Amino acid sequence: MKATIFQGSGKIEVQEVPDPVIQKPDDAIVKVTYCCICGSDLWPYRGLEPRDAGSRIGHEFMGIVEAVGEDVKNVKPGDLVVAPFVISDGTCPVCRAGETRFCRNFMFWGSKGNDAGQGEKVRVPMANGTLFAIPKDKLDEHMMRALLPLSDVLCTGHHAAVCGEVKEGSTVAVVGDGAVGLCAVAASKRLGASRIFLISTHKDRAAIGKKFGATDIIEARGDEAISQVKLKTNTLGVDCALECVGTPESWQIAFGVVRIGGNIGMVGVPHNVPDIAISKLFSTNIGVKGSGSPAAHYIPELMPDVLSGKLDVSAIFTKTIPLSDIAQGYKDMDERKEIKVLVKP
Amino acid sequence: MKATIFQGSGKIEVQEVPDPVIQKPDDAIVKVTYCCICGSDLWPYRGLEPRDAGSRIGHEFMGIVEAVGEDVKNVKPGDLVVAPFVISDGTCPVCRAGETRFCRNFMFWGSKGNDAGQGEKVRVPMANGTLFAIPKDKLDEHMMRALLPLSDVLCTGHHAAVCGEVKEGSTVAVVGDGAVGLCAVAASKRLGASRIFLISTHKDRAAIGKKFGATDIIEARGDEAISQVKLKTNTLGVDCALECVGTPESWQIAFGVVRIGGNIGMVGVPHNVPDIAISKLFSTNIGVKGSGSPAAHYIPELMPDVLSGKLDVSAIFTKTIPLSDIAQGYKDMDERKEIKVLVKP
Repeated sequence: MKATIFQGSGKIEVQEVPDPVIQKPDDAIVKVTYCCICGSDLWPYRGLEPRDAGSRIGHEFMGIVEAVGEDVKNVKPGDLVVAPFVISDGTCPVCRAGETRFCRNFMFWGSKGNDAGQGEKVRVPMANGTLFAIPKDKLDEHMMRALLPLSDVLCTGHHAAVCGEVKEGSTVAVVGDGAVGLCAVAASKRLGASRIFLISTHKDRAAIGKKFGATDIIEARGDEAISQVKLKTNTLGVDCALECVGTPESWQIAFGVVRIGGNIGMVGVPHNVPDIAISKLFSTNIGVKGSGSPAAHYIPELMPDVLSGKLDVSAIFTKTIPLSDIAQGYKDMDERKEIKVLVKP
Repeated sequence: MKATIFQGSGKIEVQEVPDPVIQKPDDAIVKVTYCCICGSDLWPYRGLEPRDAGSRIGHEFMGIVEAVGEDVKNVKPGDLVVAPFVISDGTCPVCRAGETRFCRNFMFWGSKGNDAGQGEKVRVPMANGTLFAIPKDKLDEHMMRALLPLSDVLCTGHHAAVCGEVKEGSTVAVVGDGAVGLCAVAASKRLGASRIFLISTHKDRAAIGKKFGATDIIEARGDEAISQVKLKTNTLGVDCALECVGTPESWQIAFGVVRIGGNIGMVGVPHNVPDIAISKLFSTNIGVKGSGSPAAHYIPELMPDVLSGKLDVSAIFTKTIPLSDIAQGYKDMDERKEIKVLVKP
């Protein structure tokens, strides 16, 4: 079978690898039907995050179960399934508290000898906690593209909204117009936000944001973006700022646009973001919360709304390629030609 | 009339001062019936916080309205009223968002030429936003003592619980067994917490905590306190840690006892607490939120439960003195002989 191998900064290759086999009683083997490239795959691609050369890569995929170990009860061969971006057991105290991202036995795809998502097949450890069956009736290509984001970006955008405490009537500002930011817009709309500002200077991304529920596009950066949001919120700022980038610049905007007593929901992996002074929070009653998303916890809640068509973020996929072209897919995302690239192995 | 004057570290005096008069159309004059000494009054008393010598002091009081300016509509002469610890207009965008602590026109008692609470009478600026009338029928001395904490500590304990997201079924750990911590216990119980740990090595305070709803007293400090809470929560930690002290030691406990994905509600004014690394929050999904309490926002919600007897924290007052003895009251609280001293001018 073929799989994508990270060979170092800027080097993505598709190679022939052995077919996976069941190694443990709670393993499953999944034949991948759809996978995709994540913004976070670009960090090692750009040399900004260490990753072993020769390692498998990719953590967003769905497919058909081919085989299961004897302890696997939640899915069976033939099931259409989606997997979250973190392998989790679903049974430890942390998982039971809903924090599957931090499962006591968590593993990442492509590390510790695990397969990864950008390939033809994947061995899935702890399949009872890690795989979610999708009712298969009448699912067309469009629905597949709407379901795949459950593996990461849709749950991550939803996590930003949950951590930022978006609720009925909230005013929201989304910082970041990548796939996660756009999903945060859709998640905020689903949770009842009355006004959603998307800070975006890219017309194509802003257009998708509008489609997902953004009521106002702020075509500006830095202090100018902050001023425009304040101006449009009676000088107050928004109830919820959703930080979907993770840079000092994006954090400056998040703190700048959120109102006294509001909340920052953060899902952008922080890179060189300064520490926060407790006194800065205490003197504003601004709350800060966030992390990688507990996708396995959110999938059961979000999937019905995806299947009903109420939650459709398939428009984040701006290009579809075969596995053999995946190196070009990375290049296109790295150069910001595409928002997110879908891959059909 | 007589009022309490701060004369420098360790020096509290009762002096004769001019009777207050209406200066602005939205002023009211209140004859103080009950006031008290706050833990935060001890910071300047101990020389740990700057305060002008010769300034009036005290920010928790209730009393009877004697006179009002022509623009005062919410209260009238003869009304029994309670005042929050911050003067706020109640009408600016920040107040309307419920964040009265940060009112755009906020003032503190005893600063900017304002009277303060530990005296016979007080001129109350912005009385429409700052005074809350209490239905007077059948209120006995006990009820007065249950109502007075609405001015600060009860609302502050409630704010800790709100910021820590205490709800039906939550597990809670309260860090701090002073008046605010004890009120945080009572507020957590009111919000439906199923288990409330109070970290306290003082038997008298722990006894009051038990009375207010603490299910478990953790008689330990530092790492030992953390271990005991973890042991009693299936190794997980609690959903909500309520930080009611504001020191590096109390923060260490708060971060130590809260579970992955839990929330720290902070109301202890931070003194020398280290900055928080964003990565520390991001790698745990622990939320942090808190500030001085928007008491004026909470009083209308909490007062009915106080009047019905459902919410009674009057036991925090361990001593009652006349105004002439207030210097001794400060001394007793400074030496931790008393939890909170009530003063009857």
